[in-house]
Amino acid sequence: TYRSMSQPTIITVAITGSLPKKADNRAVPITVAEQIESTHEAFEAGASLVHCHVRNDDETPSSDPEKFARLMEGVRKHCPGMIVQFSTGGRSGNGRERGGMLSLKPDMASLSTGSVNFPTRVYENAPDLVDWLAEEMLRYGVKPEIEAFDLSMIFQAATMTKDGRIAGPLHVQFVMGVKNAMPADRDSFAFFAKTLNRLAPDATFTGAGIGRHQTTLIDWSLEEGGHCRT
Amino acid sequence: TYRSMSQPTIITVAITGSLPKKADNRAVPITVAEQIESTHEAFEAGASLVHCHVRNDDETPSSDPEKFARLMEGVRKHCPGMIVQFSTGGRSGNGRERGGMLSLKPDMASLSTGSVNFPTRVYENAPDLVDWLAEEMLRYGVKPEIEAFDLSMIFQAATMTKDGRIAGPLHVQFVMGVKNAMPADRDSFAFFAKTLNRLAPDATFTGAGIGRHQTTLIDWSLEEGGHCRT
Ligand SMILES: [Zn+2]
Ligand SMILES: [Zn+2]
Ligand SMILES: [Zn+2]
Ligand SMILES: [Zn+2]
Repeated sequence: TYRSMSQPTIITVAITGSLPKKADNRAVPITVAEQIESTHEAFEAGASLVHCHVRNDDETPSSDPEKFARLMEGVRKHCPGMIVQFSTGGRSGNGRERGGMLSLKPDMASLSTGSVNFPTRVYENAPDLVDWLAEEMLRYGVKPEIEAFDLSMIFQAATMTKDGRIAGPLHVQFVMGVKNAMPADRDSFAFFAKTLNRLAPDATFTGAGIGRHQTTLIDWSLEEGGHCRT
Repeated sequence: TYRSMSQPTIITVAITGSLPKKADNRAVPITVAEQIESTHEAFEAGASLVHCHVRNDDETPSSDPEKFARLMEGVRKHCPGMIVQFSTGGRSGNGRERGGMLSLKPDMASLSTGSVNFPTRVYENAPDLVDWLAEEMLRYGVKPEIEAFDLSMIFQAATMTKDGRIAGPLHVQFVMGVKNAMPADRDSFAFFAKTLNRLAPDATFTGAGIGRHQTTLIDWSLEEGGHCRT
């Protein structure tokens, strides 16, 4: 459903992406301790959901379940009630490695329901991997946030909800501004929201813009009745 | 532009897909001689463009330039004025193999400007491969038919036309009904046509529906002012 004015807006903080390093930005939290502290600051500033990536000691993306476990433990202790969302994004590992931490039962996890081009490569989410990640989320009671990099991923998420591969109601993030995938386009954003509402009337959505498109997508998301993400 | 009523509709025939074999359908033309005869029949029935895949002797998909050369020679001889379009689709080979026959200078060739999920795999068109195929088409004067399996591919094609990687005017085929990619959806089809017209006002388009969606997409394409394909 389109969010009614009385429902609270969920503010998401993505404390650490999968790529920026200390050399790019001193403020990027890399260690689990830094990530917990950074999440706590965002929590006190009003964020209610944290989107988590973890890193190896050399700052490269990691999918180590042990790091995810310590991060979740710290967030739950310091930020009571905050929603913990793990990334199953493709930079942190190959194939099923990407979902090795779902058994930790975070509140949510990201799930891309298709493949798309990224700036220099194919972001591969083969059908059998998507199905397996969805299955793990069902098994461990993890609510997926669908990362929709293109229109077909919204259709695929709705189909998977209808046939029971995903537990509803659906929550979808429209991601725009990634080079070679969907650019930040106002008309397309409105069409995505309208289509999601047609296919899954009880679904919620949010918008995520990459880089300079971040605030634009927050505006569009609020205008169309979605949640927002910082 | 939307096709005006006075412009002729181009009827495309896809004589041989990349997959069906004689065991599935006795009528599928496999050898180059069979393909030429089949194209000739379609030409006499009014088809003006032929979309070509070639096959190995064991009926598996091929990207052999020699076969493409013989097919083009036969079509040009038997079907004067017919537009010859080669497929650079992914089943016929890996990477640059897929464009090895562009130097034969067919009138057109297919070009997917992004990646997407197919029924059992990722249809991979990595950014550097897309750029290379487009470059070869520019070099040999081959007009691309953009195979748009999702919305972002329309944006990508428009961007590539604006920055000179593709020679305009753009011609795009909206492909729907492939499992795990875009389903056949009327509203999305209209949005694709509207978006293409907004991004590239001089572009033309056609619709291709897979399997049972074939006639549906022809209807939608004509309704929205596009060309058709059989
Ligand atoms: Zn604290
Ligand atoms: Zn992420
Ligand atoms: Zn003949
Ligand atoms: Zn084809």
